Amino acid sequence: MSKTRLNVGVIGTGMIGKVHAENIAFRVPEVNLRSIADVNQQAVLDLAEQLHVSKALTDYHEILADPSIDAVAICSSTDTHAQIICDAARAGKHIFCEKPISYDLQKIDAALAIVNGTGVKLQIGFNRRFDPNFTRVRKAIVDGVIGEPHLIHIISRDPEPPTPEYCKTSGGIFMDMTIHDFDMARYLVGKEVVEIYAGGGVRIDPEIGKVGDLDTVLMMLKFEDGTLGTIDNSEKATYGYDQRVEVFGSKGAIHINNNYPNAAIISDGTSIRHDLPLYFFIERYANSYIAEVRAFAQAVLLEKPTLVSGLDGRVPVVMGLAARKSIDENRPVKLSEVDIARR
Amino acid sequence: MSKTRLNVGVIGTGMIGKVHAENIAFRVPEVNLRSIADVNQQAVLDLAEQLHVSKALTDYHEILADPSIDAVAICSSTDTHAQIICDAARAGKHIFCEKPISYDLQKIDAALAIVNGTGVKLQIGFNRRFDPNFTRVRKAIVDGVIGEPHLIHIISRDPEPPTPEYCKTSGGIFMDMTIHDFDMARYLVGKEVVEIYAGGGVRIDPEIGKVGDLDTVLMMLKFEDGTLGTIDNSEKATYGYDQRVEVFGSKGAIHINNNYPNAAIISDGTSIRHDLPLYFFIERYANSYIAEVRAFAQAVLLEKPTLVSGLDGRVPVVMGLAARKSIDENRPVKLSEVDIARR
Amino acid sequence: MSKTRLNVGVIGTGMIGKVHAENIAFRVPEVNLRSIADVNQQAVLDLAEQLHVSKALTDYHEILADPSIDAVAICSSTDTHAQIICDAARAGKHIFCEKPISYDLQKIDAALAIVNGTGVKLQIGFNRRFDPNFTRVRKAIVDGVIGEPHLIHIISRDPEPPTPEYCKTSGGIFMDMTIHDFDMARYLVGKEVVEIYAGGGVRIDPEIGKVGDLDTVLMMLKFEDGTLGTIDNSEKATYGYDQRVEVFGSKGAIHINNNYPNAAIISDGTSIRHDLPLYFFIERYANSYIAEVRAFAQAVLLEKPTLVSGLDGRVPVVMGLAARKSIDENRPVKLSEVDIARR
Amino acid sequence: MSKTRLNVGVIGTGMIGKVHAENIAFRVPEVNLRSIADVNQQAVLDLAEQLHVSKALTDYHEILADPSIDAVAICSSTDTHAQIICDAARAGKHIFCEKPISYDLQKIDAALAIVNGTGVKLQIGFNRRFDPNFTRVRKAIVDGVIGEPHLIHIISRDPEPPTPEYCKTSGGIFMDMTIHDFDMARYLVGKEVVEIYAGGGVRIDPEIGKVGDLDTVLMMLKFEDGTLGTIDNSEKATYGYDQRVEVFGSKGAIHINNNYPNAAIISDGTSIRHDLPLYFFIERYANSYIAEVRAFAQAVLLEKPTLVSGLDGRVPVVMGLAARKSIDENRPVKLSEVDIARR
Repeated sequence: MSKTRLNVGVIGTGMIGKVHAENIAFRVPEVNLRSIADVNQQAVLDLAEQLHVSKALTDYHEILADPSIDAVAICSSTDTHAQIICDAARAGKHIFCEKPISYDLQKIDAALAIVNGTGVKLQIGFNRRFDPNFTRVRKAIVDGVIGEPHLIHIISRDPEPPTPEYCKTSGGIFMDMTIHDFDMARYLVGKEVVEIYAGGGVRIDPEIGKVGDLDTVLMMLKFEDGTLGTIDNSEKATYGYDQRVEVFGSKGAIHINNNYPNAAIISDGTSIRHDLPLYFFIERYANSYIAEVRAFAQAVLLEKPTLVSGLDGRVPVVMGLAARKSIDENRPVKLSEVDIARR
Repeated sequence: MSKTRLNVGVIGTGMIGKVHAENIAFRVPEVNLRSIADVNQQAVLDLAEQLHVSKALTDYHEILADPSIDAVAICSSTDTHAQIICDAARAGKHIFCEKPISYDLQKIDAALAIVNGTGVKLQIGFNRRFDPNFTRVRKAIVDGVIGEPHLIHIISRDPEPPTPEYCKTSGGIFMDMTIHDFDMARYLVGKEVVEIYAGGGVRIDPEIGKVGDLDTVLMMLKFEDGTLGTIDNSEKATYGYDQRVEVFGSKGAIHINNNYPNAAIISDGTSIRHDLPLYFFIERYANSYIAEVRAFAQAVLLEKPTLVSGLDGRVPVVMGLAARKSIDENRPVKLSEVDIARR
Repeated sequence: MSKTRLNVGVIGTGMIGKVHAENIAFRVPEVNLRSIADVNQQAVLDLAEQLHVSKALTDYHEILADPSIDAVAICSSTDTHAQIICDAARAGKHIFCEKPISYDLQKIDAALAIVNGTGVKLQIGFNRRFDPNFTRVRKAIVDGVIGEPHLIHIISRDPEPPTPEYCKTSGGIFMDMTIHDFDMARYLVGKEVVEIYAGGGVRIDPEIGKVGDLDTVLMMLKFEDGTLGTIDNSEKATYGYDQRVEVFGSKGAIHINNNYPNAAIISDGTSIRHDLPLYFFIERYANSYIAEVRAFAQAVLLEKPTLVSGLDGRVPVVMGLAARKSIDENRPVKLSEVDIARR
Repeated sequence: MSKTRLNVGVIGTGMIGKVHAENIAFRVPEVNLRSIADVNQQAVLDLAEQLHVSKALTDYHEILADPSIDAVAICSSTDTHAQIICDAARAGKHIFCEKPISYDLQKIDAALAIVNGTGVKLQIGFNRRFDPNFTRVRKAIVDGVIGEPHLIHIISRDPEPPTPEYCKTSGGIFMDMTIHDFDMARYLVGKEVVEIYAGGGVRIDPEIGKVGDLDTVLMMLKFEDGTLGTIDNSEKATYGYDQRVEVFGSKGAIHINNNYPNAAIISDGTSIRHDLPLYFFIERYANSYIAEVRAFAQAVLLEKPTLVSGLDGRVPVVMGLAARKSIDENRPVKLSEVDIARR
């Protein structure tokens, strides 16, 4: 691409849309924020004023119709992702899309087929791949520092559960929360998962159970190379956002601790302590949201593959389907059982 | 009991028998080491000289026949435990017995029945229950500091795998190594496990696989109250003996780190580092071996229940049988499926 | 002030000038970068292009003459600071000035007198006051968490010594490096230092000694309230930038560790380790450079006092003079001995 | 020596005498506890019963007169140490003596002259030299891991201040508390201190000030090779016994943290914390008290020099005298000024 800066439109200005819009406006040198769109007119007008963006729209098609736009960031509700991907690809816009692409594998496959046909670039918003802790783990594995991976443990706990209302449309804990951990499992080990056994329950909020969701889940993963792993999710850790992984291999192990707002330790007559970790994903992953958009812009500008492909967006959805089936049938479920492409 | 000190005989002077004999001889004020027995005459003579013990025997029945003996510590090979328990109980001797009681539930049940009938005290050698790290975790749970447990993770990795020869008679990794972790799972959570799903492989030494054993295993446990847990075992951690647990609950979490030979941190041009953890169980649990024998002696002297009962010795064997069955059939296995008492 | 954004000119585009210019250009919403000036024409043109600034000047007086400019950031060489402060104050520009104001107390006092006369705001670049670690320590003291301070230790070590050439004009280690620690001592304890005893030597680079400077110094401070403290400076820590403090008080203590590029811990057959700390002040204090400029802009916009006053810039210079005199005479030196205002 | 076990008498059964007597009785294979003596008859009888020692005496001369006794451990009050050393040396008994030898250099020199004349072995009770943390620091320096030492910091804080009554006869904080740190400074760096500058105050208990003592002191040390150091003492750290050192050198640094009763970390809604450190010297240095007596016994049995010589007992007293003089005159004091041998 002969440009040095991408013109970007942001579609959807909810919580995560605001994060991306602000970063695109202020913190990523390779991009310009040109327009934003949201079905909620007041929200989009307010944000446009705050970010000094001139085009505030309610219909994302206007962004796609604008020839000055190079790329879009899709941050709308999950049920709209697949359609907007198709529309954007047909309009020749490069696409950054929040996870998950869809809860429906057929819709995912249809969208990816169109993307592949048009040749636009697509990057899925698995921001943890751009976090220094997780990249350090991946680097240790790639460098062979810990040898061949044997075991991996992922702990991912939220400080507060979602509302039962939210759970109704979130796709459930596996699609909404665990999906990041499914991505991490594949990314860190560098191998595909072939089987999942999941257990879970409603330990935090009975209302979440009433809408058919779980708030506490534990999974065991088998990878294609024999590596075994676990994912531990709780929707309420009283001490805050808990994001750790450990990979154990033939030559050693690497694990990461949480990130804290400061490195202070207080000692008094009761304990030796530090403050609680950074509160939630907005604070904890602030820099990775910037880094992923920079990486996307650089991939487009330098005509290189994006670092999180459409397939990377698809596989965790398959994993989520397998995990749910495992819960329902209380048995290990192979990914091939739920993947329409393999049936 | 009107005495202030127990006269003890040690049966079996292999590695763990030596540990107990030395502790009984030198470090536990409540006991006297009176006699030791081992089928290997030279070994028992050498140890007797080193510990200043006058009675060095090759036949444990002589210890049982000695009216001055109050209690025995059974440290012989696992296949002899059940029989010696029966013999000792009939001889009216209180019994401290190394784990596991047997690999055979019928033999365990027979031995426990005799113990119950005679009224002698029996304590199983689950020494980790006497380690300050694990007792601190248990205390946090009992005190309600972390609320109701939701999730537990046990990591237990050895610095070196056993020889394939050893594996032939050890009962396999679940009976030999995981059995301590099964005990910890029950002890820490304070609830019974009802179902186990196990995965595993041979990742370290193919010879271990040839004798039908595994060297790397991962388990998912379901407890009666809905708590979920994992146990992670590797027989070779290059960085040494790795003994950690984490319990997560409704009010918080507690985890333990490894113990180190010193609290020094070295910084230079390559890293910020500390030395490797205490090497293996002999070093890591040195004090817990003393503490468990003291606790046993105090239970006998003060006529209180022992802190690790015969049932506590039996349940982990059931868990080991379930784990093995789970591996063989690749499905979650209920403990009730393998427990003869519940069939 | 009725504006919502300050127009700022940056004077001096050396290493720290570039940091401020970039932050003002891209990362501080409350400011616009309007113009930059440096005696090195090529340097200023290059930076202007990189930051998309239209006015690249070689004479700072042009910035001062520009009526659209609200404030200046003085980042030129130390020997020019006092004069530019005077000029800027007379031009009615608010002033952010890098430390130290001058090595000469008379020049400092003259500059501060003019600033006071004109009523412009002045903030000195003691950026550590805006770092979350140091602010956490200060908060603990203000909140009374550690009670009344008794003892404070400041460790501040650089990864690489300056060149001997640099040392000739830097004002020496006390003025160039320790000056930040002098500021921290006053800021954290919240009391003035009354006496300093300094020791030091040339342990790293004999060439530094040849130009009359020291590369390793240790000081003992007495505060007005009886609190005692130390400052430890080395110009070469092989493991990188080492920035720690500890304050001990009647109710407890607080200390801070270094900041690291990630929270990963690697275990293998040699050690349990993490990577080296963030390399040097540019990396370590990146966010505090942003925060101090925001705070300056907010002070101007909201017409509040700046958080680092002219006096805060002056006292550490007095401390540096006392430390040097203590080295020369090997005795504790009272600040009143070297402070012209108190003679 | 042709024996394999030393017969030892313990003189003085106060707090530290009890520690040594119990260790000699139960935990050091190379020694037998033969007799104990104390001017307090009831105390010595009680302890003898508890430790199963047959000879409980009120006059230490009876121990010295007993030909079966090989060595004595002098644990009586400091003012009696020098005299008992002389008596024991003349009686041909090897001597383990608690620190300090005396507050009076003349008495120390007279006692050491007699010891040297008789050829008995003398070891001073600087137990920290036998603690794994401090030996690890020393090893790093000896191995050259941190290069040539440049800076050392010793922090040594007690959980509770002594009573003012105790301070009257303790020799003051420098002789009673700092003396261990003076020993550590010399031992760790492996060089002699040539000058001390001390500051201090009464921050904890005004009654301690009324008897002429200090409860909070800070010192700066200059070593013969240019290394600079600090010692930080407080008699009341609310969080418990704080025993840390840091040595910084040309190739890197080593520091030690405190020791804790367990390795547990608790996380809840308020903080991430661990329990307080081991409470005080009895708990913290329990193993070093055993190790120093073993080392003493081995030195005698194998006819090797003791690891803490009479000179090692003398120099810290000189340092204490210099520190006190520095406080009184508020100036750095050379050790040669207060050392009678160098005048």
